[in-house]
Parts: sequence; structure tokens; C-alpha cells
Amino acid sequence: MNVAFAISLVGLICLGVGLCMLLPLAVALIHAEPGWLAFLGGSFVCCLLGGVLFWSFRDRRVKELNHREGMAVVGLSWLAAGVLGGLPLLLSGDFKSWADAVFESVSGFTTTGASVLTNVEAAQKCVLFWRALTHWLGGMGFIVLGVAVLPFLGVGGMQLYKAEAPSPTPDRLVPRIADTAKALWWIYVLLTAAEALLLLLGGMDLFDSLCHAMATMATGGFSTKNLSVGHWPSPFIQWVVTIFMILAGINFTLHFQLFSQRRWDAFWRDEECRFYLALTVGAALIITICLWLAQGLDTASALRLAFFQTATILTTTGFATADYTLWPPLALAVLTMLLFIGGSAGSTGGGPKVMRVLVVLKQSLAEFGRLIHPRMVNPVKLGRRTVDKQVVAAIWAFMGLYLACFALTTLGLAALGLDGQTAFSAAIACLGNIGPGLGPIVGPVGNYASLPEAGKWLLSAAMLVGRLEVYTVLVLFIPGLWRD
Amino acid sequence: MNVAFAISLVGLICLGVGLCMLLPLAVALIHAEPGWLAFLGGSFVCCLLGGVLFWSFRDRRVKELNHREGMAVVGLSWLAAGVLGGLPLLLSGDFKSWADAVFESVSGFTTTGASVLTNVEAAQKCVLFWRALTHWLGGMGFIVLGVAVLPFLGVGGMQLYKAEAPSPTPDRLVPRIADTAKALWWIYVLLTAAEALLLLLGGMDLFDSLCHAMATMATGGFSTKNLSVGHWPSPFIQWVVTIFMILAGINFTLHFQLFSQRRWDAFWRDEECRFYLALTVGAALIITICLWLAQGLDTASALRLAFFQTATILTTTGFATADYTLWPPLALAVLTMLLFIGGSAGSTGGGPKVMRVLVVLKQSLAEFGRLIHPRMVNPVKLGRRTVDKQVVAAIWAFMGLYLACFALTTLGLAALGLDGQTAFSAAIACLGNIGPGLGPIVGPVGNYASLPEAGKWLLSAAMLVGRLEVYTVLVLFIPGLWRD
Repeated sequence: MNVAFAISLVGLICLGVGLCMLLPLAVALIHAEPGWLAFLGGSFVCCLLGGVLFWSFRDRRVKELNHREGMAVVGLSWLAAGVLGGLPLLLSGDFKSWADAVFESVSGFTTTGASVLTNVEAAQKCVLFWRALTHWLGGMGFIVLGVAVLPFLGVGGMQLYKAEAPSPTPDRLVPRIADTAKALWWIYVLLTAAEALLLLLGGMDLFDSLCHAMATMATGGFSTKNLSVGHWPSPFIQWVVTIFMILAGINFTLHFQLFSQRRWDAFWRDEECRFYLALTVGAALIITICLWLAQGLDTASALRLAFFQTATILTTTGFATADYTLWPPLALAVLTMLLFIGGSAGSTGGGPKVMRVLVVLKQSLAEFGRLIHPRMVNPVKLGRRTVDKQVVAAIWAFMGLYLACFALTTLGLAALGLDGQTAFSAAIACLGNIGPGLGPIVGPVGNYASLPEAGKWLLSAAMLVGRLEVYTVLVLFIPGLWRD
Repeated sequence: MNVAFAISLVGLICLGVGLCMLLPLAVALIHAEPGWLAFLGGSFVCCLLGGVLFWSFRDRRVKELNHREGMAVVGLSWLAAGVLGGLPLLLSGDFKSWADAVFESVSGFTTTGASVLTNVEAAQKCVLFWRALTHWLGGMGFIVLGVAVLPFLGVGGMQLYKAEAPSPTPDRLVPRIADTAKALWWIYVLLTAAEALLLLLGGMDLFDSLCHAMATMATGGFSTKNLSVGHWPSPFIQWVVTIFMILAGINFTLHFQLFSQRRWDAFWRDEECRFYLALTVGAALIITICLWLAQGLDTASALRLAFFQTATILTTTGFATADYTLWPPLALAVLTMLLFIGGSAGSTGGGPKVMRVLVVLKQSLAEFGRLIHPRMVNPVKLGRRTVDKQVVAAIWAFMGLYLACFALTTLGLAALGLDGQTAFSAAIACLGNIGPGLGPIVGPVGNYASLPEAGKWLLSAAMLVGRLEVYTVLVLFIPGLWRD
């Protein structure tokens, strides 16, 4: 493994993060906020560090990244981006400690949306903009962006792409990986712009609509208001956000087919997408009925609240328009189940992904066939394609490790003295990149400010592990990765 | 499928259950309790029904049971035993409704140990004895017992044995399945007798020591006292119960090797057993430290409480010597994790079984090897033996279905209005055949009396599904099972 070359690419990512900080710097200057200095300083440090790393370690002879180098670059880059992204937050004065600033930054990049800010509206606009921007960069993946815009990354692009978006999904849309990355980012930009425009039309101001559009399409969840999207009672705004959350949780390959190949039935032809939409509608209808019966809401409000909260949890966004922890037990139980599913493979959503859950269920049910006809060959199929046995095994392995990470994070938080509900839900909300958990502390009306420092570090790690789908992070600790 | 022949065997099991009711009848007569009439009536109904079914449907030409018939017989027999076992409980007057009586009976046979009795000490001795006896019959399996004592069942014995104890474990100890069943039941009887003797020596009376020995070796959990084993403060008694719970959670194949082949290192040579013992000791030590720090207990008491509660949850027994729901968060979180593991394969313990969890973890970790060396072949091994890929796939499928059953049971209980903690913990406590859950309602100091009737039926079904390891129950609902 060429460690020097890997480090030079990590340097390049640091440089990119530094350049991105110029945008919140501009926001600070426009609004004459003192935070401009924080972002200038942050940008300077990132660019300096990134530049030094890139130019000291670069190696012009290397033409190709291998699989292991791809994982190392992606894992280390995300770690670096998470830590460096916290630097301007700390310098801005809106965050009390390194633990808080890094937690918020990692929560941003990983599109978790868990916050330590107790009063979002008191924070500077540049800070709020940076939070939304980290979401947006992390949602589709800043390394995929790098592959799209930096031609010389194209050679190792496939390895980087697979390490940053490791879900089991068709490899590329078009023959060249750089073009695939470009296509994905274009769709992402277009959908974000469309949502921002609709939100503007619905009555949001430009700043809020931009921030919320970025947070929605990334399935992030940071809002600019204390009441999250609930700040705007307008049904139009809430439905726009709901629909774009659902779109963000769909495999972007399908958006590509819809947009550029005009296959209007793309969503319907894809079995994962059908299952995902059925889950969304099914869960939302159950919750609607609960809200009808228990809280006597009118149909329109009940449907709106139910679909919004279902979409926000299933797509792992983490916005809120209601304190669902006060809802009837069945509604809460349905939402709790959704915490363990996540968005579609190839979407910006987090969690273990709908595709994996679907394969797991299919194989579990296929065993019935084998019990009745022991010699029957009953492979798992998605649509008309048989899922390779090796892929099924890898999916199971992923699910096992994911649940183990969840258990260990919960145990860690419990060891720090958090009560069961808080530890359980904070662990899955961060590992699944969702954001808000259950209960009064980390629920939709709470935040992570009161957690002990060690808990914030642990959850920051869990968010990274969840975003990079476990292996890309944990493999960094396997000595075999670094050997030749 | 020969449905008539299957029904005749189910009739035979009903007959057996009816004969077993003569034992509590004797207890009632000794203690001059009015319940004698209930057990006489129950016994009469069971014997009559069983006899009629057996003699009307038997088919002397059939010499062999096939795989599907084995599952049908076992599934239906357990259903019948659960329902019929509730009959004398209902007639005794100590239970208010069919739902209560069947819940208690199913909880007994499945060795769950969840109770609807609010005051155990007020119940008749014959009722308490029947509760313990259902545990004991269900623990090693009354169908395995049938295979051991009825020579003509020997021909289909393998199919019955596999359907009642479907864990992935070496098939037989000795060439003939009837001899294997006999050997297992002898060890079971000897261990039960040994524990009863030690409890007698520790100061329990004969009745309590017999009931507790049966409930321990079956990993059941019904006690004859309201404070469960906590009724006896004697450290000797508590340690005896702890050690026999741990023994009951070990694969009985290893006990066989130890007893009859004098392989003193049997426990240590078996990887599942090593992992199981390591889990027990590890969890107990963490809890000991928690109790030390948080409650200032002396070392001996902390160790005793920690080992007892760890063993009772991990082996899915369900006795209690402390209200662990009041323990520090870490201790509670550790116990909650153990709810999802269970005893060893081939033990009387419930849950998904240590073996399955171990295979799942091993395969998850093996994926790291494949990431670093993509072409590496890395099969899952237990001890020196490679686990067949088909077995690994079946284990994953089982885990998926098990978690799905858990989720559906939780949702069902939430739909009936139970709060999240109660629904979550009652679902896993019953599906895993553990007994007590978490929280004030179904926790170790509570009971299931206050649950709605529909919840009791749902949990009764969950207990059966958990005891027969999901497939043997659910396959009854697949029409393909019943076709020729």
C-alpha cells in the first residue's frame, strides 16, 4: 500500500474543505457577522495543511489506486473533514469545546443532523450556512464530487466511489466513473435547486430555503430554526419538504434513468424502490390512523404530520414538525422500527439501507421453501435479477456488524451513565445518521448538548462508521490494510 | 403428507400430557387441596381426546415419518399441549380466564416463566407443581421424551427430534436416535436430582427444592415464592441455582461427553461453550463493578447478584434475586443485550442461541479479510470444523426472521396500547423464552396479569414461536406443508 500517495489525496480533500469554507465566509461578510474571521482562519488552516500534505507526498508515477488504498483515502479523508470542519465552528464562538464543534461538524458531513446547539436561532448565519453546506457536501459525497471535477482522480475513481458509497448497487450509470459521478452530482444540484425554488415560493426567505434544500436533499436534518420545519405552519412547505425527503431517499440511479433516459416507470420497475415507497405509505397510514384515533386531528393534518415524520425517520433526515415521542405507542413503535431501515442503496439516506433489509427478509422467507422441499434451489431475487450468493453473504455480514456497532455504542453510552432510552436511541440515531432519537433528552425537541464529552466523541465515531457503512472506517484499524 | 397419521401422533402426545397431570393430582391429594378435581378433570379430558385421536387416526402401515410430517406433528403437539395444559389451571380457580390459563401453561411448557399470577404464594401447591412440571417436560422436550420411551416412535424419531430441537448442532450422540434421546433425558434427570438434593441441603423444603430444580434445569423460571429465588437469602442456595442455570444453558452433548465418556475438557474444547462461559463471566464482572461503584455492595454480594442475574437472563431462565431494572444504566444495558443471545444450541435455554450469534459475528468479521484480500477464501469455522455455507445461510435467515417476529410482536403490543419499554421487553422476554422483561409492569417484580387479553394470546404465540425456533410453528401456516 502506497501510504504517501494516500496521504497526498487526503491533503487534496483538506484543501477542498478549506475552499468550501469560503462560502460561509461570504455569508458572514454579507451579514456583517464576527464569524467571518473564524471561517477565514479555518479556511487558511485547511488550505495550508492540505497543500503541504498534497505537495509533499504526491507521487506522479502512481496511475491507479487499488481497493485498499481507496478505502484508506476515503476513511482518512472523512476523519480529516470531520475534524477540520469543526475548526471554524469552534473559532466562531458559538460552540463551547472541541468535542461540541467536532460533533456538530461530523454530524453535518455524515448528514446525521444531531446538534449540540440549544438555541439554533441565536447562532450566526455563517455557522448555520456551514452546517447546511457540510450536509450537502457529505450527502452525495465530497469524494464523489472530487472524482467528478478532478480529472486525475478518475483513474482511481472507482475505488474511491465504492469506498464512499459501499451499498450493494449497480456500479455505474455510464461507462466512465467520472461521468457517473458528474451525472449524480448534476441531478443532486438540480433537485436541490428545485426544492429551494419551491420553498421560496412557499414563503421562506432565500437563506432558509437554501439551507433547508441542502439539508433535505442530503437527508441531513440541520434546520435554521429551533422548531425545525415545524417553524413554518404552511402545509405547502411541509409537503414540499416531505416529497423531497422521499426523493432523496431513492436510489439516484433511478433519478438518472428518469431524468436523462426518460424512463417514467423507473421508480416502479425497481423492486427496492417499490418496497421503500410501500414502507413509507404503509407506515404513514398506520400513524395517520393512530393520530386520528388518539388525538382527534383532521384528516389533512394527520396525513401531513404522519407522512412528514415517517419520511424524516425512514430517509434518516431528522427534521421535525411534531414531538413524536408524545404520540400513541403504536405510532412510536412504527417510527422506532424505521430507525433500523434507512434510505435506499445509492440514495443520500443513511441506515442499513432498504435493499439490505429487503434481501434479509427475502432470504429468511426463502428458508420456508427449503423446509418444505429440502432439495429446492431458491436463490434470492431482486426484480428479475438473482442476487449473487457472495453479495447476500456480505449483506448478512454487514447487518451483523452494524447491529454489533449499535450494541457497543449503546453500551458505551450506558457506561457514561445515560438512561436506557437515551442510550439506545442516541446510538441508533447517530449510527443510522438520523439525528434526533427518542425521549426528552435526545428526542426531536431536545438536543445532544447535555451529553458528557466522551459520549459526544463516541457518537461522532458512530456517525462516521454509519455514513461509511462500517467497513471503510473499521478497516483503518486492521494492520493488514497498511502492509504491502 | 399423511395428515391422519400426524394427528394420531398428536393424540398420543395429548394422552401423555393427560397422564402427566396425575402427578399434580397426587400433590393435591397429599395436601388436601380442592384443586385435585381440576387435575382429575383435566387429565380425563386429555386422555379421552388423545385416545380418541390416536385410535381413530392411527395407521399401522406407516413405518417412517418424513421431514414435513415431523414438523407438523411437533408444531401441532406443542399447540395442543399448551392449550390442554391450561385446562386444569382454569378449572383450579386460581386463574381468571382462558387467556390467563393458556398463557401460564404455554409459558410453562416453553420454559418462558412469564406469569399472570399476582400472588404466587396464594396459589395451590398442585398448581405450582404443575407449573414446574410443564417447565421440566418442555425443557428437554416432551417429544424427545416420547422418542426415548416409545419404541415405535423411533422410526420417525430423527424428524421429530430435529423439529423440536432445531438448533444447528451435531445430530446424535449414539447411532440410534432413541438412544440419544434416552441419554439426554437421563442426564437431565440426574442434573435435576442433583440440584434438588443440594437445595434440600441448603435448607429448602422438599416441595420447593423439587419445583426449583425442575424450573432451573429447564431454564424455566416459575418459582413458588413471590420474591422468586430472592426469597432465600442463603448465598449457598443462590449459588447452587446460579451454577445449575449455567449448566442448563450448556449443550447437553457436552454433558454427555463429560458424564459417559469422561472427557473432562469437554466444555473447554467446544468453541460455543467457551464463548458462552466467557460471555457469562464477562457480563457478570462488568455488572459486579457497576454494583460496587453505584450501590456500594461488598464483593461477595455484588458477585452473587451479578452472576445470578447474568445467568438467569443469558440462559433465559427468568428467576430473580434483585430488581435489576433499578440497577445502573450500564448493568441494565448489558442485561438487555443478553436478552438477544440465549443459551447454547442443544441446551434447554431459549433465545436465538449462542452458536448462531457466534457464527454471525464470525462471518461479519471475516468480511474484513475479504476487503483487504478480495480473493481470499475465508470460511467460518467453529473449533476445527468449517461451518457449511448452507448452514451459515440458514443461520442468517433464522436471525432475520427472529428479529422480524420480535418487531411484529412489539408492534402488536404497542397497537394494544402498551408503552414502548413494556412492549419491547415483553416481546423479547416471551419470544426468547426468558420470562421477566424490563420496567415496572413486566419486570422482575411485576407480572403479565395487567396485560390486555389480546396481548396475552399474542405473547403465548410468541413463546411457542421462540421455543420451536420460528420455522416449526410458522411452517404450519404454509399450505405447501399439507399438500402431498
